[in-house]
Amino acid sequence: MGRKILVTGFQPFGGESMNPAWEAVRRLPDTIGDATVTKVEVPVVFGRGPEAVERAVEEVEPDLVLCVGQAGGRAKVTPEFVGINYADARIPDNDGCQPIAERIVDGGPDAYFATLPVKAMVQAMREAGVPAEVSYTAGTYVCNDVMYSLLHTLATRHPEVRGGFLHVPYATEQATHLPASTPSMSVDDMARGIAVALEAALTHEKDVDVATGSTH
Amino acid sequence: MGRKILVTGFQPFGGESMNPAWEAVRRLPDTIGDATVTKVEVPVVFGRGPEAVERAVEEVEPDLVLCVGQAGGRAKVTPEFVGINYADARIPDNDGCQPIAERIVDGGPDAYFATLPVKAMVQAMREAGVPAEVSYTAGTYVCNDVMYSLLHTLATRHPEVRGGFLHVPYATEQATHLPASTPSMSVDDMARGIAVALEAALTHEKDVDVATGSTH
Amino acid sequence: MGRKILVTGFQPFGGESMNPAWEAVRRLPDTIGDATVTKVEVPVVFGRGPEAVERAVEEVEPDLVLCVGQAGGRAKVTPEFVGINYADARIPDNDGCQPIAERIVDGGPDAYFATLPVKAMVQAMREAGVPAEVSYTAGTYVCNDVMYSLLHTLATRHPEVRGGFLHVPYATEQATHLPASTPSMSVDDMARGIAVALEAALTHEKDVDVATGSTH
Amino acid sequence: MGRKILVTGFQPFGGESMNPAWEAVRRLPDTIGDATVTKVEVPVVFGRGPEAVERAVEEVEPDLVLCVGQAGGRAKVTPEFVGINYADARIPDNDGCQPIAERIVDGGPDAYFATLPVKAMVQAMREAGVPAEVSYTAGTYVCNDVMYSLLHTLATRHPEVRGGFLHVPYATEQATHLPASTPSMSVDDMARGIAVALEAALTHEKDVDVATGSTH
Repeated sequence: MGRKILVTGFQPFGGESMNPAWEAVRRLPDTIGDATVTKVEVPVVFGRGPEAVERAVEEVEPDLVLCVGQAGGRAKVTPEFVGINYADARIPDNDGCQPIAERIVDGGPDAYFATLPVKAMVQAMREAGVPAEVSYTAGTYVCNDVMYSLLHTLATRHPEVRGGFLHVPYATEQATHLPASTPSMSVDDMARGIAVALEAALTHEKDVDVATGSTH
Repeated sequence: MGRKILVTGFQPFGGESMNPAWEAVRRLPDTIGDATVTKVEVPVVFGRGPEAVERAVEEVEPDLVLCVGQAGGRAKVTPEFVGINYADARIPDNDGCQPIAERIVDGGPDAYFATLPVKAMVQAMREAGVPAEVSYTAGTYVCNDVMYSLLHTLATRHPEVRGGFLHVPYATEQATHLPASTPSMSVDDMARGIAVALEAALTHEKDVDVATGSTH
Repeated sequence: MGRKILVTGFQPFGGESMNPAWEAVRRLPDTIGDATVTKVEVPVVFGRGPEAVERAVEEVEPDLVLCVGQAGGRAKVTPEFVGINYADARIPDNDGCQPIAERIVDGGPDAYFATLPVKAMVQAMREAGVPAEVSYTAGTYVCNDVMYSLLHTLATRHPEVRGGFLHVPYATEQATHLPASTPSMSVDDMARGIAVALEAALTHEKDVDVATGSTH
Repeated sequence: MGRKILVTGFQPFGGESMNPAWEAVRRLPDTIGDATVTKVEVPVVFGRGPEAVERAVEEVEPDLVLCVGQAGGRAKVTPEFVGINYADARIPDNDGCQPIAERIVDGGPDAYFATLPVKAMVQAMREAGVPAEVSYTAGTYVCNDVMYSLLHTLATRHPEVRGGFLHVPYATEQATHLPASTPSMSVDDMARGIAVALEAALTHEKDVDVATGSTH
């Protein structure tokens, strides 16, 4: 029997009528390599987003989980390296909640590193012509809430399951009403990138050995 | 008999193996509205680029000319408002020439405004979901050389023909090896944008009356 | 008898409580090289800004005129190469006027090039440690209105007087309430840059011969 | 007896002839509030940077430690929220070492949060007219190496001492030879910002309760 991948994408938020994360996720093929792909849309709500992911993990029993969110302003697809135990919202979430400087899990560690091979994923996307870069901050909003919570759930209850998070830029059509310098990407390219990134994650138990880090 | 559009795109330059301008131009449909579309690839060479455009104008006898070039670093498709009588190259062109602070046409006016409805073109692209913005500088490299020369040729010898220039961002696949913040756009979206921009140019003898200007 | 320089700076606009252009201008020394410096604050109003500059030209009878404005979002001090015969305002000016796609001078040429040595000015600023770059668009707002009008006045009535325009970034203190990526510069560094740029303008009747142009 | 602050700044690296971090640190006053300030320059070398900081902590026995580094490309002064147990160098350090995907402390936790009131520090800098923003990534180079190591040392051996890290932009004079869009800041403004940030750290045992987080 083949492996199983769970991929989640967020609903629209912040006044936008679409979320490129979910648009890209739902265009993924139903199988990648030897694995079947289950796609789930989750709410942009602190606490409820992570719960929806956790519920899907229990139901699907995946080998690999990737949650996808939008990072408006970034120019590339960015697998996230680390989730932090901290919620601090500049704008309210879709339920109107706005946590300030709160812990996500009381007594949880300050951070978890993704257990996906982020460098191999970036390399695979670049080879496929999709601009990609490892990111070292998933922010402090619902995306990080979902990432940290997922990694906490996997670490404490499903240590054999690998998981991580990935941010996508604005979709091209979202950028029409944004400032002239705002980067964007077509949802087709995002979906193509996520597919090869997942394929790389399936075939790399360990990450590749290339320098992708920063110079500060 | 229908109208005729001439569209040109540049060859690769600056060490790149493709030029998104020509890639987008050659994907244009062969008819737009009531007009047939002729597509010509031109060299990234001072003097020879403009000559290739001029030759195509003489052969095609178009009603409307749009030259397309790459402006790496921009995030949107940008119809140009003005070409200036000035060549100043930061890097050599594809023939190895690098003019510094030279006039393009001795005795020519300092500048020509595009005779295409740049605001209507931007509006049409935005409505089609393609990020677009009017630009007020076509630079001082071969793009501006072509733009100024075209407008000079049309003004002095074909005043009934309307013409202009349009810059596209890096193609998505070019950005894989560029810094993390470099914006890009899929060539398909560029081609789609140029097509609706040309349709808008056909249907607007006069430009639309909306504010697109700057605040400095 | 020594030469005379006229330098103007704009009043605050767009909701800001200060304009770094005027703040920098009023900190200039009263003499630069052999020249005395007269400083005049002008309103951010289409038509009235240019009139204030013209009045000052008549009164001061300068050898050299530099008008200074703010280009929020730029990271460097940018002498402008060209002013265009076009006004198009994204926001109303300080008198509430918002011209759309209007000519500044009916029957005037499409553009005038600055008659100051912009490359020598940039070079002098860089040598003094002030980031600087030639700009090829002064926008379509009151700054360009002032620049084009000044160059038109000088060309038609005072051809022996050299003139131009220079944009400065946001001042450091303005950027505290702006997005994280907004560049800024200390007003002291702006003033220091403008002073050495004016010195270079005094000593260079002809511009220096270095490449500063674009690659698109 | 008054309190003691230890502030460190890095030596130049990456081909630069100065490091604005140390330039700003050495301009700090010798007392801030009731505290004396000790300033130490440390090498941009994995392992040796952290050792130099640790040695200074043992010697000075400070109440509060702030390490300062350069993050070229940022536009604001950015107190760091979190250091991660990970070293990944895009370029070699000043000793020629280039760790790839290595742990800083074997068996150490994935991350430590700064124990300085980063929001209060940002607020104080903004009120003083210095652009500032909380950052959620200190990168993966020597800056993060120093930050993580400092917080590990303090957590395991000096839990009563508070500590953190702060990044500064390029200095104004560094940006003269960098691309046109590169932001920078005067070293005087950095020093002024760091001084008021330290004053805020002295007076805020707990951080202030304002939203500074992200929206992704």
